[in-house]
Amino acid sequence: MENTYVIGIDLGGTNTELGLVRNDGHIVARHNLSTKDYSSFPPFADDMVKAAGELCAAGDPETGWHGTVNDLRGIGIGAPNADPNTSSMVEPPNLKQFKGVSNFAVEFRRCGVTVPVAVDNDANAAALGEMVYGGATGMKHFIMITLGTGVGSGIVVDGKLVHGSTGTAGELGHNILIPNGRECSCGRRGCLETYTSARGIVQTYIEVRREMGAPADAKEHPGWIGPEVTDAEIHSITVGMAASAGDPLALEAFRRVGYWLGIACANAVTFSAPECIFLMGGPTKVGDPLLRPLRKSFDEHLLNIYQGKCRIEMSHLKTNEVAILGAAALVS
Amino acid sequence: MENTYVIGIDLGGTNTELGLVRNDGHIVARHNLSTKDYSSFPPFADDMVKAAGELCAAGDPETGWHGTVNDLRGIGIGAPNADPNTSSMVEPPNLKQFKGVSNFAVEFRRCGVTVPVAVDNDANAAALGEMVYGGATGMKHFIMITLGTGVGSGIVVDGKLVHGSTGTAGELGHNILIPNGRECSCGRRGCLETYTSARGIVQTYIEVRREMGAPADAKEHPGWIGPEVTDAEIHSITVGMAASAGDPLALEAFRRVGYWLGIACANAVTFSAPECIFLMGGPTKVGDPLLRPLRKSFDEHLLNIYQGKCRIEMSHLKTNEVAILGAAALVS
Repeated sequence: MENTYVIGIDLGGTNTELGLVRNDGHIVARHNLSTKDYSSFPPFADDMVKAAGELCAAGDPETGWHGTVNDLRGIGIGAPNADPNTSSMVEPPNLKQFKGVSNFAVEFRRCGVTVPVAVDNDANAAALGEMVYGGATGMKHFIMITLGTGVGSGIVVDGKLVHGSTGTAGELGHNILIPNGRECSCGRRGCLETYTSARGIVQTYIEVRREMGAPADAKEHPGWIGPEVTDAEIHSITVGMAASAGDPLALEAFRRVGYWLGIACANAVTFSAPECIFLMGGPTKVGDPLLRPLRKSFDEHLLNIYQGKCRIEMSHLKTNEVAILGAAALVS
Repeated sequence: MENTYVIGIDLGGTNTELGLVRNDGHIVARHNLSTKDYSSFPPFADDMVKAAGELCAAGDPETGWHGTVNDLRGIGIGAPNADPNTSSMVEPPNLKQFKGVSNFAVEFRRCGVTVPVAVDNDANAAALGEMVYGGATGMKHFIMITLGTGVGSGIVVDGKLVHGSTGTAGELGHNILIPNGRECSCGRRGCLETYTSARGIVQTYIEVRREMGAPADAKEHPGWIGPEVTDAEIHSITVGMAASAGDPLALEAFRRVGYWLGIACANAVTFSAPECIFLMGGPTKVGDPLLRPLRKSFDEHLLNIYQGKCRIEMSHLKTNEVAILGAAALVS
């Protein structure tokens, strides 16, 4: 089979990374742009298309392929608050410099791109990436949950992403897990995000250490976060490292986070009965301290008719590749 | 356009009703069988096919159409625990006389039916009925929630029922609304069903009257359920009638039920971003005492990006027609 190429663009608040992706999922080359250096969208679009052109010109040394952006199969962009129906971002919260509507299709056409341009939000792109290049190959029904600053999700039903009537379906991070629970940045209370995002993990740890105090055998736990570290200084990575080192407080925090996420996953199954729920994102890297209580809670809370029919897995894609591969999958 | 006909069968634990349905949604004639009189499935299938044959033979006086079951477009069956992939019910809890697997396609073929036979669970059938004959005509994304002895749901995404990898997706009644909440018949705790089914309404009323006691102006409320009515004697219809008559305790019970259902509906929107959530079933007949607090809670708990984009409506189909029309829609 002849090789085809796409450009995947992972647009983030700080950095934007472009990758030239071969149809077998190999990222041939990358280019980085500093998103925050742009004060409006059109010059940013100019530079994205220029960088894409340079990646195409350099081409794939392994196969000898090279060309222009219009020799690609297309350009896919994973971006916050992106709406695939309109090919645009609308006032993304972390990209306030791009006021109003930032329309990728229109701007890329202006820059001479004639091949397909597809846009979707980052969690949806990650789900597609898993389907095209990762562990969900051939699956008709699965869910991707991304843990990070927020909690995102991409839901695949009958082999297609669920976009719903608004284009913005699949916001499981804002499913209310505990009515009247923790305050969420969305202005409501009790959203899954407040319990299982990076910030949710930190808040849980702080609650745990307030409840439990220093462990009796604190000195035996090199990972233990001492009282000299203030609440404000604790990051989810700190908690993850402490848990990995065996700190009982950090392990208890992840036990609670896993318990909550297990309920949310069991609830998601009652909706679309997926074969698998994939997880990705920084807070999942801790591994067993999160996964064990998560799977235990999932089994306990899963309705009997679904028992043994849905598993929870980590994304099969590499952390530093998933965003670009997800974006690439939008045009694959 | 030439008229076509299907038989819709609403299979219930006590009664099974067959209807001859014209393609414009008119139920031409009906026939009733007493489900509980059958001790095994094959003779029951014999009688269903025989009754269907009689309905076809009598035909449609308005158009003059008549024929045999094999002149139909098909036969659709809405039944508890039915799996469309296997065309069968597996040990439905309220039909214990039909042990093991009751396969409609196989039994109906044995009885000489050669036209398509389609089976689905009752809530999914109701959703399809709404799409083909009711208020969801032309909608790509909507959800049907049925309140009754249990709480069922049918979810439509991209114009198709979501069946998931197991064939049994769409069990929102067993979404855990309150972790570690009320005991559910499924063996878990806190399921939506325990708060908003007929039984959930009764339990809520009992809790309310325990908390609040007799209203100060009880005598002014002809609907008030006096202390002479024991907890065991209260049915959801009793509570509905009391609420309609203005009883503050019953109104408070429905206010709580509406509050809970509003959260569940808002959560469902984060999944598939439907245009509309339809409600049907006995407990919804009370109307405003349920719908007002439900819509209020829905608005309060709906994520901002969905505000104004999803409405809650009663099913547009008549209560005594929805089950047959839903079953008919399976082959429409």
